[in-house]
Amino acid sequence: MKIPSSLDQLIDALRILPGVGPKSAQRMAYHLLQRNQSGAAALAHALADALTKLRHCQRCNTFTEFDLCELCADPARDKRQLCVVEMPTDLLRIEQTLAFKGCYFVLMGKLSPLDGVGPDDIHFDKLLARAQDGEVEEVILSTNFTVEGEATAHYLAELLRAQGLRVSRIARGLPSGGELEHVDSSTLAQALLERRSL
Amino acid sequence: MKIPSSLDQLIDALRILPGVGPKSAQRMAYHLLQRNQSGAAALAHALADALTKLRHCQRCNTFTEFDLCELCADPARDKRQLCVVEMPTDLLRIEQTLAFKGCYFVLMGKLSPLDGVGPDDIHFDKLLARAQDGEVEEVILSTNFTVEGEATAHYLAELLRAQGLRVSRIARGLPSGGELEHVDSSTLAQALLERRSL
Ligand SMILES: [Zn+2]
Ligand SMILES: [Zn+2]
Repeated sequence: MKIPSSLDQLIDALRILPGVGPKSAQRMAYHLLQRNQSGAAALAHALADALTKLRHCQRCNTFTEFDLCELCADPARDKRQLCVVEMPTDLLRIEQTLAFKGCYFVLMGKLSPLDGVGPDDIHFDKLLARAQDGEVEEVILSTNFTVEGEATAHYLAELLRAQGLRVSRIARGLPSGGELEHVDSSTLAQALLERRSL
Repeated sequence: MKIPSSLDQLIDALRILPGVGPKSAQRMAYHLLQRNQSGAAALAHALADALTKLRHCQRCNTFTEFDLCELCADPARDKRQLCVVEMPTDLLRIEQTLAFKGCYFVLMGKLSPLDGVGPDDIHFDKLLARAQDGEVEEVILSTNFTVEGEATAHYLAELLRAQGLRVSRIARGLPSGGELEHVDSSTLAQALLERRSL
């Protein structure tokens, strides 16, 4: 007795999700087939759709369905300040504070040598080219104050300063070890305001 | 600033997976788009493929790509014994013991009034019709020895006996509260052998 191959392949395919082992992949597959076929169809469609439509913004590297994201296409943004964040969620979080009117660069990660994430994976060359467009006057490093976020900021600061760029770090108004996503807007706004030169 | 709609829809779609909340759906979406686009494409394909190909076996109710599953199509199986299990994984587990040569019926769940899972959801009418095919002489209830599995067995025993069917329960050789999936083959074989009439 063998399990049907399409079921086997679905269980296998679900294991690419982070944190999903063989048992929970099996549970997910049965759940989808048994209790939520329309949800499963919607998920298949959403995956294919996202893969087709989403790309990295040519300027800031965040996910967008166009060549430029909404923010990079906005002429009202201050081109002199470039705020560097780890993930698109961090960008959204800073936008919510209404305290920053400049531009962003999204690393889509953080340096993490133990996980094999190096400078290429955080798109360092693209950041460097972006920061050297002739309009950027200051790069504000707004990676998290976690161990890896801090290491990323120190690494970027050194290399960007070597290119003659002015670099600052978002102020440590956040609790040590804290993440941008989990802090209230006024603390985050304060941290942006009190950024210090590096 | 809004998140691109195809990304938003992907995050939403991932939330149908059991145990996946908004935060982990977001993390999964970024992981797929950022680190494993080929895996995401494979998942989309596997989902669509499984939804197209898989159906319930007309006789035993398990998932199959054909009208009848491999086991129900096998003329060598003993048609006089019908073993009722909760899930396809339980069927596979029993097959591994090599201790049973009869046929199966897969409930695809268990009674769980608190979760709104009633007799219709465990395909009781289909089981009744299957058990009354004129060939089945004994229905062996092999649901788990959990609270819900036991309740399901008691419910099924009562209704099947009311139809004049001989009903037995797999022996409690399994530890109380245990699940078929997690027991060794010899214990499971013993439990089948020592089933008691209900
Ligand atoms: Zn952009
Ligand atoms: Zn079958």
